[in-house]
Amino acid sequence: MADNFDTGNKAHDSAEDNLNRVVELLRKHDLVTRLVHKQDMPRRDLVENLVHKQNLTELHTLLDDMHSADVACVLEALPLNDRLLVWDLVKAERDGEILLEVSDAVRESLIKAMDSDELLAAAETLDTDEIADLAPDLPKDVIQDLLESLDTQKRARLQSALSYPEDTVGGLMDYDIVTIRADVTLEVALRYLRRLGELPEQTDKLFVVDRNGALQGVMPLQRLLLRQPDEKVADVMAEEVVTFHAEDDASDAANAFERYDLVSAPVINADRHLIGRLTVNAVVDHIRQESDSDMLSIAGLREEEDIFASVWKSVQNRWAWLAINLVTAFVASRVIGEFEGTIEKLVALAALMPIIAGIGGNSGNQTLTMIVRALALGQIHPDNAKKLFRKEIGVAFINGLIWGSVVGIFAYLLYGKPALGVVMMGALTLNLLLAAFMGVAIPAIMHKFGRDPAVGSSVLLTAVTDSGGFFIFLGLAALFMPYLT
Amino acid sequence: MADNFDTGNKAHDSAEDNLNRVVELLRKHDLVTRLVHKQDMPRRDLVENLVHKQNLTELHTLLDDMHSADVACVLEALPLNDRLLVWDLVKAERDGEILLEVSDAVRESLIKAMDSDELLAAAETLDTDEIADLAPDLPKDVIQDLLESLDTQKRARLQSALSYPEDTVGGLMDYDIVTIRADVTLEVALRYLRRLGELPEQTDKLFVVDRNGALQGVMPLQRLLLRQPDEKVADVMAEEVVTFHAEDDASDAANAFERYDLVSAPVINADRHLIGRLTVNAVVDHIRQESDSDMLSIAGLREEEDIFASVWKSVQNRWAWLAINLVTAFVASRVIGEFEGTIEKLVALAALMPIIAGIGGNSGNQTLTMIVRALALGQIHPDNAKKLFRKEIGVAFINGLIWGSVVGIFAYLLYGKPALGVVMMGALTLNLLLAAFMGVAIPAIMHKFGRDPAVGSSVLLTAVTDSGGFFIFLGLAALFMPYLT
Repeated sequence: MADNFDTGNKAHDSAEDNLNRVVELLRKHDLVTRLVHKQDMPRRDLVENLVHKQNLTELHTLLDDMHSADVACVLEALPLNDRLLVWDLVKAERDGEILLEVSDAVRESLIKAMDSDELLAAAETLDTDEIADLAPDLPKDVIQDLLESLDTQKRARLQSALSYPEDTVGGLMDYDIVTIRADVTLEVALRYLRRLGELPEQTDKLFVVDRNGALQGVMPLQRLLLRQPDEKVADVMAEEVVTFHAEDDASDAANAFERYDLVSAPVINADRHLIGRLTVNAVVDHIRQESDSDMLSIAGLREEEDIFASVWKSVQNRWAWLAINLVTAFVASRVIGEFEGTIEKLVALAALMPIIAGIGGNSGNQTLTMIVRALALGQIHPDNAKKLFRKEIGVAFINGLIWGSVVGIFAYLLYGKPALGVVMMGALTLNLLLAAFMGVAIPAIMHKFGRDPAVGSSVLLTAVTDSGGFFIFLGLAALFMPYLT
Repeated sequence: MADNFDTGNKAHDSAEDNLNRVVELLRKHDLVTRLVHKQDMPRRDLVENLVHKQNLTELHTLLDDMHSADVACVLEALPLNDRLLVWDLVKAERDGEILLEVSDAVRESLIKAMDSDELLAAAETLDTDEIADLAPDLPKDVIQDLLESLDTQKRARLQSALSYPEDTVGGLMDYDIVTIRADVTLEVALRYLRRLGELPEQTDKLFVVDRNGALQGVMPLQRLLLRQPDEKVADVMAEEVVTFHAEDDASDAANAFERYDLVSAPVINADRHLIGRLTVNAVVDHIRQESDSDMLSIAGLREEEDIFASVWKSVQNRWAWLAINLVTAFVASRVIGEFEGTIEKLVALAALMPIIAGIGGNSGNQTLTMIVRALALGQIHPDNAKKLFRKEIGVAFINGLIWGSVVGIFAYLLYGKPALGVVMMGALTLNLLLAAFMGVAIPAIMHKFGRDPAVGSSVLLTAVTDSGGFFIFLGLAALFMPYLT
């Protein structure tokens, strides 16, 4: 609720500077601790204990001066022992705020180190929408205690906030809404605001509602400042407003914020009743998280990983992808196995086949990325899909001729067999066509069945271009064997 | 400069709805055009010409009602012919705004269809910072004409805006700054604002400067609204402000906006003179573009591609990556070539070797993604780097034992040779260790030499795990050949 202008830094602190300062103090502390443990002279002990304490005090002060988001960055960058040491030094009343800022994986490690009372105290410093964000990581009994400690309105809000999935507008919205009536003058509205004393962060407009809570319009703060105080709210407010519903997809809302350059927007229900608001900072966090999880899922990491997680935890996070990968590799291996007789006749085929498979996979992934992106931006329409398809096939064909000639010449020069060059060229062209076909078809089919085309389509594509590439190349070689040996 | 509350939609329009409506009208138009061309009866001709015109008028109205950002989305989703037809129907005074919104590739296609006068007229509707964004795509003579048409202050601004690289704060900032003096009362400041008539979009604070233009603080609109009119600006303003320099890295600034939940922030020079401001909408656009270009570069697309670009243009956009890929594939092929004698003795090796290479590449990319991410978030410090390294090696070792056993048993069951299973297990473990080592080392080294670790590191890693995997597996097999045959 506080405004964010006094962040305590003249310029913004870089994450690295903060980290360096904390690590320096931790290292000093560590050094002293080790000295104390090693030497048993009681007098020295006393001296070192003092130095030790001084370091911690310094660290304490440093942390107090840092913005919560900066403390969160430092915590994420520290190994578990140091992380918990720093976490203990953070003032208890900031615990809630910082827990909100850290990544899921790090939050888990911090919550594990807190008891129920500490968690309850931390959660009680937060707004209901923020508590809802923490809830998945909190123990059940803490949530129960929390619900009991809240008043009726807040409890109802928390329960409804908990009911929205994370990737909907409901999951992102907050309840910091300031409402005014349409039939008062700006003067009256201003007096009301002064009584309130402060406005929620990222407030660029007030919401105008009727007595039943139905949204009638919005009052930009700008207009409140610039128009005459004796004008009526109804005459000054904007009536056509970009609104959202709690069930709307969060990514669609993010696109709308981006397109219309919004700072905040009302969230309404089916009866146009105002139920919350969406702010640009929630949207920015969502965009970041989304692009992050895209990157992770491309690499086959199940979820965000605490970089200092235990070896065993990391193994668990990564195993699913490796297992899938193993299955597709086994399939490709069996395809090759079927042609062992062919390879026996001409062992050069074994050396050349990864070229066909590899280039097919890469070219297919280029097509796939284009299509996934176009789907995400809503650029694909039944009318233009065929056109796109033809284009990708065309690109694959030309690439097949160009790169096929290159690999064909390479094979000819190495093994001195012109027919081998022709087989390479034919196989590469066919595999690039297969790759282009799958690169369009896989995401299009996933999209049609309501699935996210970004997840898993690259694995599927590579599986097809690998096995398919081996099959095409070795199959062609088997057909033309008389000319090859 | 206008406020953005009247976007003309009750709820936000989805990109798909808009596209569907435009395509429907275009299809009708197309149908009529074709009828007219086919039939030569003059009377019918007249009738159809009328229907034809009516469709275009309808499309015209639809486009006029759409937000510029929405028109941009539609243009991106249309094949070139339709795109230019729609572009012609858009009112000339909106051309500039829409050119700003479309993707680089689509902008190029639209600019190509405009003559110098149209371009000049479009650019003149824009602010200097916006012209600077368009400039890279404009013909040189248009920029020259533009510079001549601007007044001295604007020309100086445009020239300085053109001098900042795209990925710096200077490249993102705008010049819509409203400044006030510290020694006046809020009352006076408010009177001044009312005279101005309107505030720039995304204004949440005014900038307080001294007579030389040096920044003294910021005045949040909130405080202007809530505090007493007779108070002095100096007593109400926030003095500790998050500020940026024009040379600052845009991504660092985006991180700061995210951490401190900013809506706008002042950009100052070395003397603390206010030179511009950074707004959250510019930051959001930057974040989007960055995550987009990450995704494209992972797939090896050189730049954003117009999905309806010509086949030939697409081939050019994609060739660099395929060429690199070809080189790494050739290297891997030569590694296998060295072991042709070994494969001749046991052709099963050819079928099994892609498993070792494939799983190594995938596991290495998981490590790589973790490290690239941690580097981007500033989480890696010399002190903890060793720890990370040990962890990744540990994960690779455990995965090697687990998945190594699986592939070992697979090989044993298929070929009935226990020694082959042992070789598979050993080779996979070694290749996973190599992958983990390279997954940490490649991005760390790129980061150390000031390069973006996200670009190209995955290609490099896969090249090593492919060639390395083939070498390890076939080398081990050659060593243990007596037990394998």
